[in-house]
Amino acid sequence: MSSLPPVSDLDVRRASLCQLLHWLAIGRVSPMALAEAHIEAIERINPLLNAYVEHSPALLRDQARAAEYRRREGVIGRLDGIPVALKDNFDMAGWPTRAGLPGRTRPVPEDAHVVARLRASGATLIGKTNMDEGALGAVTDNPHFGATQNPHRAGYTAGGSSGGAAAAVAAGLAVAAIGSDSLGSIRIPASYCGLFALKPTRGEISARGMVPASRSLDTVGLLARNAEDLVVLLQVLVGYDADDPRSRRRRVALSPPDWEPGNLRCGLLPDLAAVGVEPEVIAVFEAALAKLPRELGERRKVDFDDWPLARTRRAGLLLMEAEMLGTFASDLADAERPVSPRFRQWLGYAERKTAADYVAADRVLDAATLKMRRLFAQVDVLVLPTTPQGAFPLDGPVPDSQGDLTSFASLAGCPAVSIPMGNLSNGLPVGLQLVGARGSDLRLLELASVCAATLDAAPAYPVVV
Amino acid sequence: MSSLPPVSDLDVRRASLCQLLHWLAIGRVSPMALAEAHIEAIERINPLLNAYVEHSPALLRDQARAAEYRRREGVIGRLDGIPVALKDNFDMAGWPTRAGLPGRTRPVPEDAHVVARLRASGATLIGKTNMDEGALGAVTDNPHFGATQNPHRAGYTAGGSSGGAAAAVAAGLAVAAIGSDSLGSIRIPASYCGLFALKPTRGEISARGMVPASRSLDTVGLLARNAEDLVVLLQVLVGYDADDPRSRRRRVALSPPDWEPGNLRCGLLPDLAAVGVEPEVIAVFEAALAKLPRELGERRKVDFDDWPLARTRRAGLLLMEAEMLGTFASDLADAERPVSPRFRQWLGYAERKTAADYVAADRVLDAATLKMRRLFAQVDVLVLPTTPQGAFPLDGPVPDSQGDLTSFASLAGCPAVSIPMGNLSNGLPVGLQLVGARGSDLRLLELASVCAATLDAAPAYPVVV
Repeated sequence: MSSLPPVSDLDVRRASLCQLLHWLAIGRVSPMALAEAHIEAIERINPLLNAYVEHSPALLRDQARAAEYRRREGVIGRLDGIPVALKDNFDMAGWPTRAGLPGRTRPVPEDAHVVARLRASGATLIGKTNMDEGALGAVTDNPHFGATQNPHRAGYTAGGSSGGAAAAVAAGLAVAAIGSDSLGSIRIPASYCGLFALKPTRGEISARGMVPASRSLDTVGLLARNAEDLVVLLQVLVGYDADDPRSRRRRVALSPPDWEPGNLRCGLLPDLAAVGVEPEVIAVFEAALAKLPRELGERRKVDFDDWPLARTRRAGLLLMEAEMLGTFASDLADAERPVSPRFRQWLGYAERKTAADYVAADRVLDAATLKMRRLFAQVDVLVLPTTPQGAFPLDGPVPDSQGDLTSFASLAGCPAVSIPMGNLSNGLPVGLQLVGARGSDLRLLELASVCAATLDAAPAYPVVV
Repeated sequence: MSSLPPVSDLDVRRASLCQLLHWLAIGRVSPMALAEAHIEAIERINPLLNAYVEHSPALLRDQARAAEYRRREGVIGRLDGIPVALKDNFDMAGWPTRAGLPGRTRPVPEDAHVVARLRASGATLIGKTNMDEGALGAVTDNPHFGATQNPHRAGYTAGGSSGGAAAAVAAGLAVAAIGSDSLGSIRIPASYCGLFALKPTRGEISARGMVPASRSLDTVGLLARNAEDLVVLLQVLVGYDADDPRSRRRRVALSPPDWEPGNLRCGLLPDLAAVGVEPEVIAVFEAALAKLPRELGERRKVDFDDWPLARTRRAGLLLMEAEMLGTFASDLADAERPVSPRFRQWLGYAERKTAADYVAADRVLDAATLKMRRLFAQVDVLVLPTTPQGAFPLDGPVPDSQGDLTSFASLAGCPAVSIPMGNLSNGLPVGLQLVGARGSDLRLLELASVCAATLDAAPAYPVVV
């Protein structure tokens, strides 16, 4: 045990995953202390935020006890004793996987691939987080489970569809969270909540046991309070899964890439206003770029005139909605616990689409792949805001453009990282997005890390109280 | 020049690609002699077979002349001076790409990827071969360009959709041919015409410049008169193409694999009759297996009860027909040079299908991928007949089952080789199919080579006259 004093619960809940691993290693905190700090905070704060739809103090204590035992025995995993939250569209054996829908109340028999990996690494699972209905949306104002509040301002959206996961991590109710990202569902809430997020290269982390939104687009998404934490999570979760037909042999290099900050060629969009980014977000983005002359050294405008923004949006939604008609067929037919009229209406849109329409949407995926390949022959990383706007009031209108800056990487299968880049005049954060070629996940995270160190823009987590 | 006498035209047209490369190297034949032998034979025999829909003696002589020049200069490519045929759904600059349809008469500006690769290797291009209308079908009885005859028996189908290519190679009107294979279109005609065919691992040979049938299924296909020839063709054509969004980083090892015949675990279907294979084909298959105790040493029955034969057939066709509605939209709208009523009727089937139907068909692809992955964890190669039947009369009924033994490898993206395994009682050949895990193309070809040497079942090319 360390001779240093124990860490306060408040410091535990503000600490990064890597900091906690260090404190665990030197004995300044114990797995049980981590569990108790989170249990106390969730019971106090979750009623305000509605980040979790289900959590189990008893189960978390059980897992923490096992972690303490392993630690005494000296055989621990990479994340041993770290409390992690899980978006409610991943299977956790013995729990229902609601996916934001009212009728999915039966416990599932098996862990999702990522859950099994987390358990094998010693992570302790806290519970399941709120999300948009069926993962279709980016607001986390769920008609069955309520709205999740943005931890930085009550009454504002946390983003979505992984909004509960983001609120939990931002408010210190989880050290990290696993969500999903099909068109931006991990990056959008990260942007609105001042967090770090990774959407990995498609196929690198198995999505087996995740409720499919669109298998052509689905990726697991990672949320944490700094970039190094995402590196650790990626290392634990990446890898080939023979039982997931879309899983691929690993391309992500896990050792640090051979580069120096400033050596990377950074691509910038020629006109952010033209792709619908709000003026204030542009100002924060430009201020961030001004602080990063060394980290984002060589900059060039890339050609985006042929980025078919409206077509991409429609195509991405059709790919999801058409697949959801199959995924949620029994939910749509359940008269006792009906889905919301809005959800039914959205999927109804896809119901009127033909097989040929789907093929046409699928071709946008090919077009995005080619566009990104050509772009990444010219630059190493694409730098842009994560979202065209910051968090908006839950009782106001929902902008159509939420996913316009994130969907392209999804269609192209490229990795993308979001980091906090600064606050808007209303004090709410907004994210900077780094997009790279397939397989460049670790390079993006290393770049994110040095940029974040300079920007120092991570919000001070005012709600960690 | 060799002191040996020149090779006769007949021997040239019976020789394998590798034999011809040797004769070219020692000067026993010249590129021009190869060209002239083919020109003479095509003008004499093509009117009987209808293998080519267009060929150009002048262009072939031009290319042969250039090949002779390169040979004198001592700078030659891997296929320098070898006359090759091209299925008419690949772009060849300056020629129309008809794809078996009546309205596509305009010359195209650019070579398909494989055509550019062939040219770079020094191959000489003979012309474009007949195919099923839009590549939808496996008979090559084209309503606009006529039926291709099986070189082994007039009045019988050469198979399809690459039937013209197979007839050309079998009859000595081309040394090798490039076709396409989305559900069996290269393997079926190889089976019916007594040839060797490779459908490579999906994504390994770029399909850029090929008229898409279904981008999820399309592969380039290779036809030749022995297995070694396919190795050479594969080596020339395989490789990443940044301009094809479905092209993948190369997994196919090009050096000979580390194995001994007899060491491979061979998977056999438990009941060929149950999957619709005709009794006579089963007899030829069993006779072939009996001759290969050493080459196909360790044999085991694999589980195929869950092979969804009917579902696979319907799913494969829907994936193709739905995509063809887009690919052939202008052809379907062309009132002056209309597509056949049958073709319109087939695509009409897909027109009534919804986006959700397409997604369901697309999931069969995932199911096939998983099935094959599990299978190839148990065995190294799956051994089965290529087709449930041999060639049938062109004026008789067309069996529904033609692609039932080939489509599964297509959906799973696995490589498959067809070799002649013997003749049916009517004297017509039928093929043995070897299917392997993705990336095992070369291993399959090496196995095909030793099996073929023992079987010695390649027909004597009675029509090479």
